[in-house]
Amino acid sequence: MSLLIVGSIAFDTIITPYGKREKIIGGSGTYCALAASFFTRPRLAGVVGEDFPCEMIDFFKEKGIRTEGIVIKPGKTFCWEGRYGYDPNLRETLKTELNVMASFEPVLPPNYQRSTIVYLATIDPDSHEKILSQINQPCLVAMDTIQFWVINKTESLWQVLKKVNIFFANEEEIRLLTKETNLVKAAKLVLSAGPSIVIVKKGEHGALVFGRDFIVGTIAHPCENVVDPTGAGDSFAGGFLGYMDRSKKITQRTIKKALIAGSTVASFVIEDFGIERLKRLTREEIKRRMRYFRQLVSF
Amino acid sequence: MSLLIVGSIAFDTIITPYGKREKIIGGSGTYCALAASFFTRPRLAGVVGEDFPCEMIDFFKEKGIRTEGIVIKPGKTFCWEGRYGYDPNLRETLKTELNVMASFEPVLPPNYQRSTIVYLATIDPDSHEKILSQINQPCLVAMDTIQFWVINKTESLWQVLKKVNIFFANEEEIRLLTKETNLVKAAKLVLSAGPSIVIVKKGEHGALVFGRDFIVGTIAHPCENVVDPTGAGDSFAGGFLGYMDRSKKITQRTIKKALIAGSTVASFVIEDFGIERLKRLTREEIKRRMRYFRQLVSF
Repeated sequence: MSLLIVGSIAFDTIITPYGKREKIIGGSGTYCALAASFFTRPRLAGVVGEDFPCEMIDFFKEKGIRTEGIVIKPGKTFCWEGRYGYDPNLRETLKTELNVMASFEPVLPPNYQRSTIVYLATIDPDSHEKILSQINQPCLVAMDTIQFWVINKTESLWQVLKKVNIFFANEEEIRLLTKETNLVKAAKLVLSAGPSIVIVKKGEHGALVFGRDFIVGTIAHPCENVVDPTGAGDSFAGGFLGYMDRSKKITQRTIKKALIAGSTVASFVIEDFGIERLKRLTREEIKRRMRYFRQLVSF
Repeated sequence: MSLLIVGSIAFDTIITPYGKREKIIGGSGTYCALAASFFTRPRLAGVVGEDFPCEMIDFFKEKGIRTEGIVIKPGKTFCWEGRYGYDPNLRETLKTELNVMASFEPVLPPNYQRSTIVYLATIDPDSHEKILSQINQPCLVAMDTIQFWVINKTESLWQVLKKVNIFFANEEEIRLLTKETNLVKAAKLVLSAGPSIVIVKKGEHGALVFGRDFIVGTIAHPCENVVDPTGAGDSFAGGFLGYMDRSKKITQRTIKKALIAGSTVASFVIEDFGIERLKRLTREEIKRRMRYFRQLVSF
């Protein structure tokens, strides 16, 4: 199989109780592709400005990530600034500058067009159709969203869900979208709109996977040192889909294993600022923690 | 083995989005003993006023609960009133009338004095010593607490923890007690004070068990119809300890199974007001859901 990730590539400024980092590399596409790269060779599509460092593109390549779909446009790269308090589940967005993202309409290079798994990470729902129409019958379309689209493009979001197989959302987003507090009921409402799998990300509380006839769930890997939660959700999705891509089949068994894979990668990301931990992470470390984590949650 | 539960027996008035129930039977001891009764024959110690219905004591007996330690005192039974919104994790206490509980000092009947597991449910930490001194070397002392004691008797609480093997607390309580937001660090602080096991109850997010050299955790059983969350935590502890009592040994394996047992009973309790669901619950239903739940969380 082959995994295509369409998402943001950004500069993040992050403030946590452990310090501040200015203009470090971030973005949903970045985290997702790096996380997936431990399991497969993902293709990344996105846009950056002329201020984006070439070394980062080289680093993606080193990690086995295809970068032909990263477009460099005149102007500045998308910037985000956020702050976390001692509760890593709560974050405050201080600034969002779309810059080159504002008018971005991905045109996929030819070698991306035969992707079997497509992940649309936090992409404007109105752009989904344009992206998907460029791909030759993907077996699996996955998407994530952000509160901004849930609030401002509710109808479009419900429309695109019809063509989606796996929908990732955090607790607040799915509650907001379905106007339903109970997560089981909320997931059922989304399932009835199209997706065959709904994955609710609950941050430090783990994740629940709702299928048409099954539910599986796990706590998060308990972390003693949460330095920066940025990118945990995107890395979870990346690890999950990367694992799915590698296992080449979609069964309850692979979904469970992918859940462990995604949770494990996410548990590393939060140990340092931005993508720092992902940069020095090894496959061996992931394997070891996956083994430990599986034992921790198995009954 | 034999499980002794010392806790409150109360009248609860409960308001939820699904309705209101006035002066129904509640209390930590009540929920805990009923939950444990599906796995063992627990002994219940507590105090009630003259207004408490004899039929309820008879019902405890029917369920195999020993009631010789329930003292009837002149005056009114402890009353609690609370309200829940659509988020079942948040509750507001509207009224607490201690009544006969205010001056209660449990004197255990002779046949309670050889109990191997003792659970002190939400008991004033200053009363622990008096209760424990009446028991012949229990193998396992477990306790729960409430925010009120954490705030008002912090020092006493740390003192009694020295003699406790299993400490149950919810997220807020353990964070408040240890002044530490990170649950892994908070649990370690409590473990270093005495207990060999710390169980953090996270409501709809499940529970984490911290030992000196292991962690296990589970999500909660996903419930579609949460009618009244009252007593879920106490029932979780009751199911957990009842299962431990029945299995007659304390190993990582029995702890994991006890975690499933406690979570399962708790998942039934919240399906109806007060103890209504526990009243009509059968061992067969518990067995079936435990099987399903284990499958749901096993990797």
